[in-house]
Amino acid sequence: MLFSRFFAPTSKDVPSDAKIVSHRLMLRSGMISQAASGIYCWLPLATRVLDKLSKIICEEQDRIGANRVYFTTIQPADLWIESGRYDVYGKEMLRIKDRKEGDFLYSPTNEEQATDVFRKYVKSYKGLPTILYQIHWKFRDEIRPKFGVMRGREFLMKDGYSFDIDFCMAKKTYENVFKSYVATFRRMGLTPVPVQADSGAIGGNMSHEFQILADTGESTLYYDRKLLTASDNELMTTYAVTDEKYDPVNSSIPEKDLLMSRGIEVGHIFHFGTKYSKAMNAFVLDEKGNKLFPEMGSYGIGVSRLVAAIIESSHDDRGIIWPETVAPFDITILNLHRRDSHCCEVADEIYRAVSLRASSGREALYDDRDISVGEKMADADLIGIPWQIIVGSKKMERGVVELKNRKSGEIIEMSPAEVTGRFMS
Amino acid sequence: MLFSRFFAPTSKDVPSDAKIVSHRLMLRSGMISQAASGIYCWLPLATRVLDKLSKIICEEQDRIGANRVYFTTIQPADLWIESGRYDVYGKEMLRIKDRKEGDFLYSPTNEEQATDVFRKYVKSYKGLPTILYQIHWKFRDEIRPKFGVMRGREFLMKDGYSFDIDFCMAKKTYENVFKSYVATFRRMGLTPVPVQADSGAIGGNMSHEFQILADTGESTLYYDRKLLTASDNELMTTYAVTDEKYDPVNSSIPEKDLLMSRGIEVGHIFHFGTKYSKAMNAFVLDEKGNKLFPEMGSYGIGVSRLVAAIIESSHDDRGIIWPETVAPFDITILNLHRRDSHCCEVADEIYRAVSLRASSGREALYDDRDISVGEKMADADLIGIPWQIIVGSKKMERGVVELKNRKSGEIIEMSPAEVTGRFMS
Repeated sequence: MLFSRFFAPTSKDVPSDAKIVSHRLMLRSGMISQAASGIYCWLPLATRVLDKLSKIICEEQDRIGANRVYFTTIQPADLWIESGRYDVYGKEMLRIKDRKEGDFLYSPTNEEQATDVFRKYVKSYKGLPTILYQIHWKFRDEIRPKFGVMRGREFLMKDGYSFDIDFCMAKKTYENVFKSYVATFRRMGLTPVPVQADSGAIGGNMSHEFQILADTGESTLYYDRKLLTASDNELMTTYAVTDEKYDPVNSSIPEKDLLMSRGIEVGHIFHFGTKYSKAMNAFVLDEKGNKLFPEMGSYGIGVSRLVAAIIESSHDDRGIIWPETVAPFDITILNLHRRDSHCCEVADEIYRAVSLRASSGREALYDDRDISVGEKMADADLIGIPWQIIVGSKKMERGVVELKNRKSGEIIEMSPAEVTGRFMS
Repeated sequence: MLFSRFFAPTSKDVPSDAKIVSHRLMLRSGMISQAASGIYCWLPLATRVLDKLSKIICEEQDRIGANRVYFTTIQPADLWIESGRYDVYGKEMLRIKDRKEGDFLYSPTNEEQATDVFRKYVKSYKGLPTILYQIHWKFRDEIRPKFGVMRGREFLMKDGYSFDIDFCMAKKTYENVFKSYVATFRRMGLTPVPVQADSGAIGGNMSHEFQILADTGESTLYYDRKLLTASDNELMTTYAVTDEKYDPVNSSIPEKDLLMSRGIEVGHIFHFGTKYSKAMNAFVLDEKGNKLFPEMGSYGIGVSRLVAAIIESSHDDRGIIWPETVAPFDITILNLHRRDSHCCEVADEIYRAVSLRASSGREALYDDRDISVGEKMADADLIGIPWQIIVGSKKMERGVVELKNRKSGEIIEMSPAEVTGRFMS
């Protein structure tokens, strides 16, 4: 991608209403543009990150046999009246009248619609287990949207719903999702911390939040240092707790292993049994022909929130530091001296070589803009692509370019052929 | 993917309110589930087709340098008041009050928001040309939603917006999009027919619809048979006309080459000049520092509508016939005799081999369900995956399986190794 044709309107200005670093960096790097309070347009750098996150999520959901669907953003109120949540949900639900004065709403979550789809089609216990999930836009009319996309009104979320024959199988599904969430967040370069949680408006009796560690997080977490190196299975029993629940006297964490960090919630899973299947009369017939109400759970990941959370957990004074698996591009090539024909030739050739996706599998952003050396380097650090290949006149006199790692800051000189070879393997 | 774990609730019943074949087939193959009038949940077979369509669209948009974004589904009314369209849009616009009594709407199209994003960030003529596009959900509150997802209220659309320095450049962009649309539809296995169009509510002075040929289409098209084999460039000047505009006396089409077909509109492109840039004061500075209002165009593809349109143009009495490039799976493997251990062994092995995506790049749906041979074969034809590998006891006695092409109906016997080899290359 040529930067001169790419819509990433970077800026030096820090908007005064942007209180947290991810909000400031997303605005400054031209990732988002506010449309209204808590409602943001996602510009190309950000859509690329959303794509990377979604792809990882889908792959891990596939692995546990979950079925991807699209529920609808606009839903009839009837479903919510049936479950009993229409009146209790409160003002966070965006209620809508259509042209025929029918009552609708913009879906804030989909327990009702998932249950409705299930009951229409699954009539026998043989259809269990079933997991339906989607990655889709939702709306919650927060009274005080804040922190950019961290607590927005319109947001992208992965939400999944499971149907099982009994509690024992439902618990197994819950554990599979638990482990798949750990794998999902780890693939994104994050350290997930599962925390036992209350189930709130969703209801139910088994629930965990997934927090990721970030100094600017809204929660305080107490946890055992073993958690940082635990396997997926070990994590199931090595829970952390939030400060409201931390009890220093009865904690099972040895004092020498106790760590305290700030965290950001990026996922939440619930088991709630037959709450919705019973309320909505969603049953299957068991082997003897008796009605059986499936045990259900629901499983959420805040996809758009993750973009901000990753930035909170991975940045420095100069800008974003994307983990390699979720970066909008793998490599950025900086042609520092556009009027030096040798620089242009070398930078062009490197770009051609590394951006031939078929052979390298990698994507490159080539900064060919007519701006100063300082601006170009500042933008590269701001946008935070993991690898920078810097082509400048001075170094070219000695036949070398620089390969800079955004995270470590390490710079290595090498020949154009070497740098190309490195990313073609 | 194992069919026993895959959520595709097929059915023999033809719902009485489903008037057109695509609607019937989408319901019968378990692709969609109605949530309300004109509002559908998309089940796994359908999400896979939407993905394939979206991927082709994105690749072709990339090729013309368009930048992918997400505009917002919920938009402030202010933007539409500014353009003058808030009052004229009528009841098709779903109008919404948020909790603070602010006026919002569910975006039916995005000329306003695209212009708003542009004016916030692009200040110089050097930022031209720019094309922003998205693939996103929209809502139009049709008074009579009908034909399933063909004319729904909530729908997935690709919409793009271009900004150019003058009419000459805007025309070039328009032509590039025109050609890219032809390529896009052809990659989907369709025959696109560009038709000169009125620009309706969008406004403007250059506009084409893209129709695809289907016997059940709502429009009647008159066109030159040359159009069916025309290159992308030739199509620019070989327009067809709809029946309202067809004038047999003055038509330039020689009688011997005149064809008449039904068509379904799947895309629409508009050039509308400075209508929105002027109304919304979206200007850049030219080389001399004078205000310049960009010439704009907008470009739409009905992505969810395409799913139905493709089915209308490609089906038979038994079900859907997916073009290979947009099929939900490339191959389906039918294990006809689940209790025959040899059949199971062979079918399992074929599935393992062809579904190793890393080596074959192909995706397979393995029908391992415990249902009758007849049902299995009927479902395979109904769902319409391009290739069926049929493993049955009788044929296995001779060491062969059947490879059936869904479109031609041709069946070839071959050894399991041969059939695997065919899809591994």
